[in-house]
Amino acid sequence: MTKVQPVNQTWIDQAWARQHRLTKPPGALGALEEAGVRLAAIQKTLRPELGPGAVVVCAADHGVAAEGVSAYPAEVTPQMVLNFLSGGAAINQIARASAAEVYVLDVGVRGEFPAHERLIQAKVREGSGNIAVEPAMTTALAMRAFEAGAQAAERAIGEGATLLAAGDMGIGNTTAAAALTAALLGLPAEAVTGRGTGVDEAGYARKVAVVQRALSRASATLGDLAKADPLEILAELGGLEIAAIAGVYLAGAENGLPLVVDGFPVTAGALLAVRLDPAVRDYLFAGHCSLEPGHQRQLEALSLRPLLNLGLRLGEGTGAVLAFPLLRAAAEVLSGMATFEEAGVSGS
Amino acid sequence: MTKVQPVNQTWIDQAWARQHRLTKPPGALGALEEAGVRLAAIQKTLRPELGPGAVVVCAADHGVAAEGVSAYPAEVTPQMVLNFLSGGAAINQIARASAAEVYVLDVGVRGEFPAHERLIQAKVREGSGNIAVEPAMTTALAMRAFEAGAQAAERAIGEGATLLAAGDMGIGNTTAAAALTAALLGLPAEAVTGRGTGVDEAGYARKVAVVQRALSRASATLGDLAKADPLEILAELGGLEIAAIAGVYLAGAENGLPLVVDGFPVTAGALLAVRLDPAVRDYLFAGHCSLEPGHQRQLEALSLRPLLNLGLRLGEGTGAVLAFPLLRAAAEVLSGMATFEEAGVSGS
Repeated sequence: MTKVQPVNQTWIDQAWARQHRLTKPPGALGALEEAGVRLAAIQKTLRPELGPGAVVVCAADHGVAAEGVSAYPAEVTPQMVLNFLSGGAAINQIARASAAEVYVLDVGVRGEFPAHERLIQAKVREGSGNIAVEPAMTTALAMRAFEAGAQAAERAIGEGATLLAAGDMGIGNTTAAAALTAALLGLPAEAVTGRGTGVDEAGYARKVAVVQRALSRASATLGDLAKADPLEILAELGGLEIAAIAGVYLAGAENGLPLVVDGFPVTAGALLAVRLDPAVRDYLFAGHCSLEPGHQRQLEALSLRPLLNLGLRLGEGTGAVLAFPLLRAAAEVLSGMATFEEAGVSGS
Repeated sequence: MTKVQPVNQTWIDQAWARQHRLTKPPGALGALEEAGVRLAAIQKTLRPELGPGAVVVCAADHGVAAEGVSAYPAEVTPQMVLNFLSGGAAINQIARASAAEVYVLDVGVRGEFPAHERLIQAKVREGSGNIAVEPAMTTALAMRAFEAGAQAAERAIGEGATLLAAGDMGIGNTTAAAALTAALLGLPAEAVTGRGTGVDEAGYARKVAVVQRALSRASATLGDLAKADPLEILAELGGLEIAAIAGVYLAGAENGLPLVVDGFPVTAGALLAVRLDPAVRDYLFAGHCSLEPGHQRQLEALSLRPLLNLGLRLGEGTGAVLAFPLLRAAAEVLSGMATFEEAGVSGS
């Protein structure tokens, strides 16, 4: 594994200097200006350019679904994988509108799929363990799922992606994401557990209790979770697709691409990638803020301000890919605008 | 003038029914779902489609700039028109990133411009009157500026626009927009006066006082402003480009196009269009919420929820055009997603 290169502060400073000479009042483009500056630093140019994007939708099943923590039955995971492949899911439409390719990575879905051009078959196990009672996986399997994500990112980049996101699919995965986030950020279960795709009141109470049991079990093994090795936390609490998502972000950052995080399970993976290499943070943009309460805590921990706030709670990478056009606009603004001098416009 | 056709509630209901059968938890795409439903009703189809967009940037000077209400000198208005035409302004870059054409409409800029393919020359007067001491224009001139905006919208639609916004350029125009908004919504000057593109503390105090003087003057002529004719309010307080913006939105709605409003001066124009024909509201989407305090009040009055909240305060149509890709995504989602039955996915 190569190391992620932090972005250079000199590029940040130079990009801000250019931003302030452009024909607009300083700061008048708000969050778009910071985004443009960071794109410049990532691409090491004052004229950043973004072409096609890609989203790697990482899919896996979760043993914890047996605890009744989701509004949907576990068979929805493979059904939705087929829906992604036939182009009928939300992420397919949003990716088309945002000029992005969709790759589907099976790292742990129960069942087999026919071969498909956009399906990356890298199943390491049929679903993770039930984290309420057992580890999600071994650290060896966590590493394999992580590597599968990294390789999927490499493929997307090799096929032309200039902007990358991960998506998630896995019934039960907001429970795993809650346990991981609580462990990584040292927060109680209630602070990071939400209703996922729509669990009812009783289901929500079960979900909080399951996250608490998973955290107790993991800390009995690993001791203080806030000090534990991130790979061991991932193996205890994670989902296979969350391991893959961490791999997508680490490989994306190693390749110097701007990376967009999506909702709660995806940002759990991004948080793991940042724990593995803090320089990954320099490449991350937050696509949106989801309705999951733990997502806000993750974004705060990463010091990311979401570009969108549309009340999304779907996953699949939808909120990340929706933000691709905003990042393209941010790059165009910094690259293409005239300065006050060039345009002969009087400054304030 | 033809009349604007309100959207049909039957289409709204049918589009919601389809939205709820698509392979996602109901409501999981948040604000995108309502947007898709309204696009369906506007286009009278359950499979809405959006192609190229256009923005008509309406430009004019304001006599009130002489009162020192702006951080920029008045000559910036014609300088920025030239910048739009040479492609160096923020709106040019954002329009490119959002697949939109830029049209520049001169309805009242001081000075002359060379002919240009994208410049629509329809100057009705060189700048409006200083609203602190005199009417902005006659009602006859207000109608001419309004018609110029309507004709520019017709041209954009004739040349392929399927999604339309107005933009604004005019040093001093947030002062006119504040006076108009206060008059139309029955609010005090302080509630709707902001810092525009960055006026300082003393300038801000002057600006509030100017808006108060303009409102007193207008109500001395028209009586209770909340009950006055919108065209007469426009003539007393408006800018020429705000009159044109109202024309863009009214013509856009007459032609049945989805319309996106931008920041404070543009939404003042849209508010006028809605006062002239309430059915215009059915066609409006709010691109963003600007930092101008009066913009929030306008959006509340129109019951519009902004798609973006990026801290923009530039104008030119930037915040409207940035939201075009979100509306395209909303249309694609409703048109292209599979239903639970079609995809063989188990419901909750």
